[in-house]
Amino acid sequence: MTSVDLTSHIERGLSDLRELVALESVSAQGRMLPETASAVARLLEAEGFSVRQFPGQVAPVLLAEAGSGPFTLLIYNHYDVQPEDPAELWESPPFVLTEREGRLYGRGASDDKGEIASRLAAIRAVKERSGGALPIRVRWLIEGEEEVGSPSLAGFITEHAAELGADGCWWEFGGISPEGQPILSLGLKGVMCIELRCRTSQSDLHSSLGAVMDNPLYRLARAVASLRDEQGNVTIPGFDNDVRPPTQADLDAIARIPGDGQAVRDTFGITRPLATGPEYHQRSNLKPVVNINGWGGGYQGEGSKTVLPGEGFVKLDFRMVPDQQPARILELLRAHLDAQNLQDIEIIELEAAQPAARTDAGHPFVQACIQAAREAHGQEPIVHPSSAASGPMAPFTQALGVPCVAAGIGNHAGRVHAPNENILREHFAGGVAFGVALIEQLGKDRLQ
Amino acid sequence: MTSVDLTSHIERGLSDLRELVALESVSAQGRMLPETASAVARLLEAEGFSVRQFPGQVAPVLLAEAGSGPFTLLIYNHYDVQPEDPAELWESPPFVLTEREGRLYGRGASDDKGEIASRLAAIRAVKERSGGALPIRVRWLIEGEEEVGSPSLAGFITEHAAELGADGCWWEFGGISPEGQPILSLGLKGVMCIELRCRTSQSDLHSSLGAVMDNPLYRLARAVASLRDEQGNVTIPGFDNDVRPPTQADLDAIARIPGDGQAVRDTFGITRPLATGPEYHQRSNLKPVVNINGWGGGYQGEGSKTVLPGEGFVKLDFRMVPDQQPARILELLRAHLDAQNLQDIEIIELEAAQPAARTDAGHPFVQACIQAAREAHGQEPIVHPSSAASGPMAPFTQALGVPCVAAGIGNHAGRVHAPNENILREHFAGGVAFGVALIEQLGKDRLQ
Repeated sequence: MTSVDLTSHIERGLSDLRELVALESVSAQGRMLPETASAVARLLEAEGFSVRQFPGQVAPVLLAEAGSGPFTLLIYNHYDVQPEDPAELWESPPFVLTEREGRLYGRGASDDKGEIASRLAAIRAVKERSGGALPIRVRWLIEGEEEVGSPSLAGFITEHAAELGADGCWWEFGGISPEGQPILSLGLKGVMCIELRCRTSQSDLHSSLGAVMDNPLYRLARAVASLRDEQGNVTIPGFDNDVRPPTQADLDAIARIPGDGQAVRDTFGITRPLATGPEYHQRSNLKPVVNINGWGGGYQGEGSKTVLPGEGFVKLDFRMVPDQQPARILELLRAHLDAQNLQDIEIIELEAAQPAARTDAGHPFVQACIQAAREAHGQEPIVHPSSAASGPMAPFTQALGVPCVAAGIGNHAGRVHAPNENILREHFAGGVAFGVALIEQLGKDRLQ
Repeated sequence: MTSVDLTSHIERGLSDLRELVALESVSAQGRMLPETASAVARLLEAEGFSVRQFPGQVAPVLLAEAGSGPFTLLIYNHYDVQPEDPAELWESPPFVLTEREGRLYGRGASDDKGEIASRLAAIRAVKERSGGALPIRVRWLIEGEEEVGSPSLAGFITEHAAELGADGCWWEFGGISPEGQPILSLGLKGVMCIELRCRTSQSDLHSSLGAVMDNPLYRLARAVASLRDEQGNVTIPGFDNDVRPPTQADLDAIARIPGDGQAVRDTFGITRPLATGPEYHQRSNLKPVVNINGWGGGYQGEGSKTVLPGEGFVKLDFRMVPDQQPARILELLRAHLDAQNLQDIEIIELEAAQPAARTDAGHPFVQACIQAAREAHGQEPIVHPSSAASGPMAPFTQALGVPCVAAGIGNHAGRVHAPNENILREHFAGGVAFGVALIEQLGKDRLQ
């Protein structure tokens, strides 16, 4: 398979990607979502998919189907992206796919439009090689609300369970290690995004009044400082109660993951690691954490301003593991703040929370994906029991009972969610080859 | 004196004020400072002052002189103002003096252009009443760097000490209580404005990396939460070591101050007071505190963004009392952060710090001011041993040895440093009357 020339399919896939990156489908800001859904639908229809569009809470959901055969493969992707800010830190326009030194830059190049384009290119290549037929049934679910927590997805899956049944699910992301090894993930952490708000007066005041009145930014600091310790352990009482302990198989897979994050630290100039050595991958796969995403309040301009702010806010995300439940974490957080005399700090849920999910590493579909990755990339895959990242995998594993494997084209310096998001051209090509290998293998016979 | 009709002088003073408010002399942003200095100089020259302009670090310093007699009165004011942001919260344009229901709104209407205009109007009135002569020597120092910590002033005073000698100094602010009592302040807290900065990576990252890397906004939260306790006591070890205990006279004066801040709390909808009852004025006059002025970092837009910020900052001010020394507080802060493993948090001084100052309540000049305020406003003055606010008084009391009294036209709902800054028209008129009473009294004979 690796000797086959996929050049024309790769070029056409990059052309599709350029078209998709140009569409500013920022779900957090409701930008260009129906336009992007329609553009994706047109691309799929051109390859023989029957495509249906359903309304979502924020953006349309696409459900496409094509092909037939012994295996039904569910593919899951999303066409929405994160906001591009801070825009001034991009070295090329965020919504123009721009190639520099083997890398392709643009918002969504990696997360997740590059995945859509490379998978579609693989399907084109399979059909060309087979004389036009797709040897498996492909069901492709593409939503536009992933970056705001997929609020419509769980309900959509329940409602359309009969049309989504499958033997395996090819998940929406994945990547290649700095050493060229494909990385497969069998699980995702849960995520819950909230905002803490504190208001202590109707307007900003002169800071001399700070002698006799409290400060909302101090109260938020006290709240945030109480959420974790210096080592990154969440200190909300009860937070770890429902954490599923890792199995020996989880720990064995984690122990085989090479490196200890030094490449990532070097690439981004990380000065305060919380884990190195064997602990690095253990934490990355298994540790539930709280992150501060943003903080605002009072005077943020040049120089000083002696003001007592009237209000302030902090944006947080919790990254959870099986079997932590978001609603329970929220209750524990409220109780924790109340117990510290921080009853006045308001907790706002910014989007629907997602619980964590994990698929058994021994499932035949996982083995098929490992074999296809080995063939396409010519190196032994690295298997993560769980990614450090999050996504709406729980409805697939729980409501549909489908094993999920994430395999894709990201890279460790891909700056996903940040300025200068990028992929390597060679990884895009590898992703096309992986798709061809996986689909052709699944089309040969039922998995054992 | 109170029966004298000052109407035409008040109207002309308000016309001067309108001209000065229109000049956007924001020192923190370096806006229109030389233009404003020249406008003030022209107004003074028109009243017979000889005016000299000296270069400052940020803005010109004006030194004016007029009149002669048994008393030399030094007047201190500033023509710069605070930034107008958040501009959208102003109900009329910040740089257009706008009258609504007896109040005059505009940036600088109270702090400090209204003081300049009302004092100049008083001098005009005295001269008219005396047939043209000013019966005392007035030395008027007007700077344009007060809102950025007066970085040039101490040096200027040392250099020009011979030209600044005086028997008393009329300080740049003051106000009228909600019940109409004039408020005199005999001291000012010190102030030191700093920024804490923390950077943990070269760029913003996906927040899933928060499992293995520290978060700059968490580190800042830990630092800020460690600076004070829930009651507002600064918890930096050694912070209180140099605090001068209040004298019995200080405590007596404070005990005579009416109210406990309820009017302020009602006006601004304060939900978290740190002091009520007798403790209110004790803290306001005597308590050294730390204030959080602003906080920024990471994603502050709509909705959520699961980002691990690369850096963040907090702006703080310390309000100090005699005899705390800013440089020593800075050393204690550094040691305090270091002791908590927060060595990586950078401390940036945003402007020159000012120590606190206080003048003896028994000085004859203080008594003359109390008498003039009683005559002009028809009510018993309230005397604060120290204002809760800050200003560059220490060079006057220490280098020049001049007793300082703050008496002016502010009001408790004047929103100084905030949107909709304002004065009452009747307080402006009272300020003109106070100036006339004070100057005429000082011109009669040397104080005992």
